[in-house]
Amino acid sequence: MLGLKLPTDPRWVNIAEKNIEDILIDHAYCEQKAASSCISLIVQYPEKDKLVEMLTPVVAEEWNHFERVIEEMNKRGFKLGRQRKDEYVAKLLKHIRKGGHPDNQFLDKLLVCALIEARSCERFRLLSEDIADDELKKFYYELMISEANHYVNFVNLAKEYLPEETVKTRLDELLEIEADIVLNLEVRGDRMH
Amino acid sequence: MLGLKLPTDPRWVNIAEKNIEDILIDHAYCEQKAASSCISLIVQYPEKDKLVEMLTPVVAEEWNHFERVIEEMNKRGFKLGRQRKDEYVAKLLKHIRKGGHPDNQFLDKLLVCALIEARSCERFRLLSEDIADDELKKFYYELMISEANHYVNFVNLAKEYLPEETVKTRLDELLEIEADIVLNLEVRGDRMH
Repeated sequence: MLGLKLPTDPRWVNIAEKNIEDILIDHAYCEQKAASSCISLIVQYPEKDKLVEMLTPVVAEEWNHFERVIEEMNKRGFKLGRQRKDEYVAKLLKHIRKGGHPDNQFLDKLLVCALIEARSCERFRLLSEDIADDELKKFYYELMISEANHYVNFVNLAKEYLPEETVKTRLDELLEIEADIVLNLEVRGDRMH
Repeated sequence: MLGLKLPTDPRWVNIAEKNIEDILIDHAYCEQKAASSCISLIVQYPEKDKLVEMLTPVVAEEWNHFERVIEEMNKRGFKLGRQRKDEYVAKLLKHIRKGGHPDNQFLDKLLVCALIEARSCERFRLLSEDIADDELKKFYYELMISEANHYVNFVNLAKEYLPEETVKTRLDELLEIEADIVLNLEVRGDRMH
């Protein structure tokens, strides 16, 4: 799915369904972090018009998802608890190159965002297929499509600024790294990743 | 206006109009920072339901304003440049109490947000009244109303969590501090504040 090199452990969705409150809380924070990351990219690269143009509506969309996750939580009597450490994202961020040509760091930042969207998309698909709650099934189906679009957005954005071959090569490397991270993370049902 | 204790120097709007590109750039960042501050408050105080409920739509609104400022810039062929140091906000933030009862810091954070909205509201009013560009006049008139609502939102939010008298007393102190900051800032037409 979207180039991911390792499917999610099949046990995840079953434990996730049993911990749907924790999953929704974690999901709300995933949307918040996605919005905040796009805002950071805009503030860091304001001279890149195309980036500002492409990411400005993504912030609005991610924030709308945050709002909707909160609504789903409210309907079920759940409250936004504290944010948990996001080991998956922390491990991915370590692979953003620092130093060297600034384009390397720029490319890695975009591709890490793309990968997080891809993995979220895959997890949303699992939730939309396998959980019993019909309302959440539909919600996750819709969000799955949106995350797939964001993945494409980030990769296309990278191609606006860098040669297609450079983007493809690095994306492939990072997809390997991502698979390795997922393989070595404990499968837990209270986290989206 | 909204309790502000010092009106903006009447020269400001004239110099601002002559530097409308810089004003729009600075304005875009004001909206971005407003959105980011609300996100931070949500992440810092997720256990405060009413705060999450009240500020979630404010983020969406501030981000919509960011989008619209960018549109106004695009129409005029302006580009989002780098962010400038925001001395006004930096000076206000220094007055947020640290240590002591955590409610003090919480109250100050909300009231500093309220004051920034109040001052922006006043400046938007000046722009809506005094500049020649009809489209921007209307834009700033609409945003003035929105900022006034946000000011009220932040003050009401403080009153949800703290006694009305405590809120009023501290708001009054901070309004004095704000007036003093504005009085001592150089009047420059390339900044919203």
